[in-house]
Amino acid sequence: MAEWRAIVANTPTAVAQRISALVHDLGDELAEAFYAEMLAHPKAKLFLDADIVHQRLHASMRRWLGELFAPHPPEALPAIVAHQRYVGEVHARIQLPMHLVARGARFLKGRLLSRLLRRADNALDADQTEAALRYVNDLFDLALELMAESYVRDTQRVARTEEAFRLHALSQNLQVERERQRFLLAAWGQEVLFALHRGGQPLVLPTLRGSEFGLWFLHKGANLFEGAPEVELVHAGLDHIDGTLLPQLQAGDAQRQPVLITELQTALDNLQYLVQMLFERHIELESGRDALTRLLNRRFLGPILAREVHLAQQRRIPFALLLLDLDHFKLVNDQHGHDAGDAVLQQTALLLLNHVRASDFVFRYGGEEFLIVLVDVTPEQALHHANKLRQRVAEHGYELPGGATLRLTTSIGVAPYQGHPDYQYLIRQADTALYEAKRGGRNRVVLADRASAGEPTIGA
Amino acid sequence: MAEWRAIVANTPTAVAQRISALVHDLGDELAEAFYAEMLAHPKAKLFLDADIVHQRLHASMRRWLGELFAPHPPEALPAIVAHQRYVGEVHARIQLPMHLVARGARFLKGRLLSRLLRRADNALDADQTEAALRYVNDLFDLALELMAESYVRDTQRVARTEEAFRLHALSQNLQVERERQRFLLAAWGQEVLFALHRGGQPLVLPTLRGSEFGLWFLHKGANLFEGAPEVELVHAGLDHIDGTLLPQLQAGDAQRQPVLITELQTALDNLQYLVQMLFERHIELESGRDALTRLLNRRFLGPILAREVHLAQQRRIPFALLLLDLDHFKLVNDQHGHDAGDAVLQQTALLLLNHVRASDFVFRYGGEEFLIVLVDVTPEQALHHANKLRQRVAEHGYELPGGATLRLTTSIGVAPYQGHPDYQYLIRQADTALYEAKRGGRNRVVLADRASAGEPTIGA
Repeated sequence: MAEWRAIVANTPTAVAQRISALVHDLGDELAEAFYAEMLAHPKAKLFLDADIVHQRLHASMRRWLGELFAPHPPEALPAIVAHQRYVGEVHARIQLPMHLVARGARFLKGRLLSRLLRRADNALDADQTEAALRYVNDLFDLALELMAESYVRDTQRVARTEEAFRLHALSQNLQVERERQRFLLAAWGQEVLFALHRGGQPLVLPTLRGSEFGLWFLHKGANLFEGAPEVELVHAGLDHIDGTLLPQLQAGDAQRQPVLITELQTALDNLQYLVQMLFERHIELESGRDALTRLLNRRFLGPILAREVHLAQQRRIPFALLLLDLDHFKLVNDQHGHDAGDAVLQQTALLLLNHVRASDFVFRYGGEEFLIVLVDVTPEQALHHANKLRQRVAEHGYELPGGATLRLTTSIGVAPYQGHPDYQYLIRQADTALYEAKRGGRNRVVLADRASAGEPTIGA
Repeated sequence: MAEWRAIVANTPTAVAQRISALVHDLGDELAEAFYAEMLAHPKAKLFLDADIVHQRLHASMRRWLGELFAPHPPEALPAIVAHQRYVGEVHARIQLPMHLVARGARFLKGRLLSRLLRRADNALDADQTEAALRYVNDLFDLALELMAESYVRDTQRVARTEEAFRLHALSQNLQVERERQRFLLAAWGQEVLFALHRGGQPLVLPTLRGSEFGLWFLHKGANLFEGAPEVELVHAGLDHIDGTLLPQLQAGDAQRQPVLITELQTALDNLQYLVQMLFERHIELESGRDALTRLLNRRFLGPILAREVHLAQQRRIPFALLLLDLDHFKLVNDQHGHDAGDAVLQQTALLLLNHVRASDFVFRYGGEEFLIVLVDVTPEQALHHANKLRQRVAEHGYELPGGATLRLTTSIGVAPYQGHPDYQYLIRQADTALYEAKRGGRNRVVLADRASAGEPTIGA
């Protein structure tokens, strides 16, 4: 609000009035140009119905422009600011991408600026033209910033609710749902075969996309299992059946029928298999835990580290990353077999869990790598803790499946948070320190050197 | 990419070169001004560490500006475009709000434009100045659009993962966690009392924030129960104990000790109660189901409708909303009691569920209101289906807890999707149609009139 007020205060009244008049005169042309530009963009036009643009959006764009540049009294400002925020909320709800709105605004602004630069038309002197350019630029950009703020906030909220819904749906009784969809798929196949058996001309076969199974898959299943590779394969299978096999079967060539029916059976078997896979794999996909050690896997590393960076920035609570790698682990697998390797990993996980606090986080980071987030620790405390963990591992007698006992050591890289906002930087630092520990002879702890990690680039 | 190329192609080489030189000369000043502006902003400065700004960001901003305005050969463009996207990704990861970046860019752009408008300095004629202004404006804005695109995409991804993590944590064994935290809180109280009992000068009491309970709450509990009102109360309780009670106890005034210890006990009892509440309430908070009818509640209405609008826009699959309200439901409660009312709602829910397909969605929308999303239906089919549902309700003998049977009717508003991207608009339409059905004498279905709902405003 203060910024808006400052922009208005810095602009001579004559200039603001001239622009208001210009926007009034050009309103139709600008709105027309804006929507022409949007409808010409392949992605933006998906959000716009040509009828609705004419009936409503055109006028509402004119109002928006008029309001933005009206020489408003100060008491009108809160409502105008609130309106920009509201526009951002609506765009979040209809999921109209922010960058497409910004793109449209860029064209609008460009048109208006062009007019202002044609000095002969604009009845402004050189100084006034400069003030006018700044004013148009700043108000447009400020309005977009206000939209962006509420847009991003609501978009995050929407994304969280979507994810919660997906997981909610997954937590329902999937066993029952799986059996039901298997049945519905088979029922459709049966219906088609009966129809073929009855024969008759013209032969009308129900599509699989229009069946209960097809509808369920498009409106629920595809969302439920979003991201799984089988989803696209099911879509392809549906298209193949509805688009290729059914039309050929409907053509009614008696000689080709047996071949086509075999093809249909294969296609349906394939779909049954894919659907089965989807239901079975979801547990693996969804779980944030490593199956072997039950530690957290990498999936939730992002939110956890982002949160710790946030706490460090806002409340000055330091934290540190420990990256551990079991020394010569490959030899365990080679000399004692994979069961022994698994036992070592499981015992290491347990040992680490037992020697951190309830507020710390332990991840299986990769093969024999573990990552620990120690919260609320100074670099010295982190180093001390890492050394204790190193010692615990060295003292631990690993019990192998055959009954033998094994000694192992671990190398640890320690990276304390030191002000960099990007947690990837900290991971790189821990990685470099771990590498140093390995190179230095293993069974040791190395504290990351602040200057050691690669240079991150953070522009504007 | 094509847009970038067009902007460059439309700018005379002499102008682009002059700007490149200007940006080179002004680079330090611009980067300085940018970070001064960012560090002066109360929110933006949280993301910036003054040391890191000096050590790294300042130079990286200069590089960014230089790259943006370098007269690059066409083959360099893909890398420059990719770099803007990467910057957006980094900002999403560090959760630096988009609108603050846009704000900083606005100041930068303003400075550069000011310099360009000082014609005496810029060695450009009037036409060239116009081209220069456009060029600077367009490249800045385009770079921000590219950042916005990847920023929003990644921010959504981050939000989804955060929510998944929160729900994942909630799905762990909360019973065990609750008992553990109750114990840890009590253990801290005991530790403080023992320390007081031992006495000694100076008296050093451990803080509650630094205890295992305090750490768990800040780093895990507060996130787990995010949004619950008790979270702030627990924070306040921790602050009260650590900030007020402990310092007074440490002061060691023997006379005041009994009173202070009673206060500490009250404060701890209060915390125990709040923590208990948090664990108990989470199920209610998280569930997307209505407790009485087991239908979906409003929580997931947004993602479901947004998805259907998306399918309608992208695949031309129409859908419709049905808003149902049981007629004279208040009389059921008044004349037969609330148990009867509950039975009626449950039987209605079951009846509706049994008469839609697996791909449709049935919500309890409010008291005696139900909302149904019928997927893949034309307006005529939706109307037909609504009439069938109305008939089913009218024919149903509601069995009341006392053994009596009751007849009821329902009014239904039908709103088919007709191109409007905002699902709130469709809900308003269904609501208006339902109102018409009620006013027309109840036990009837009304199809929403396209022009009937309130005017939504969608600007820019």
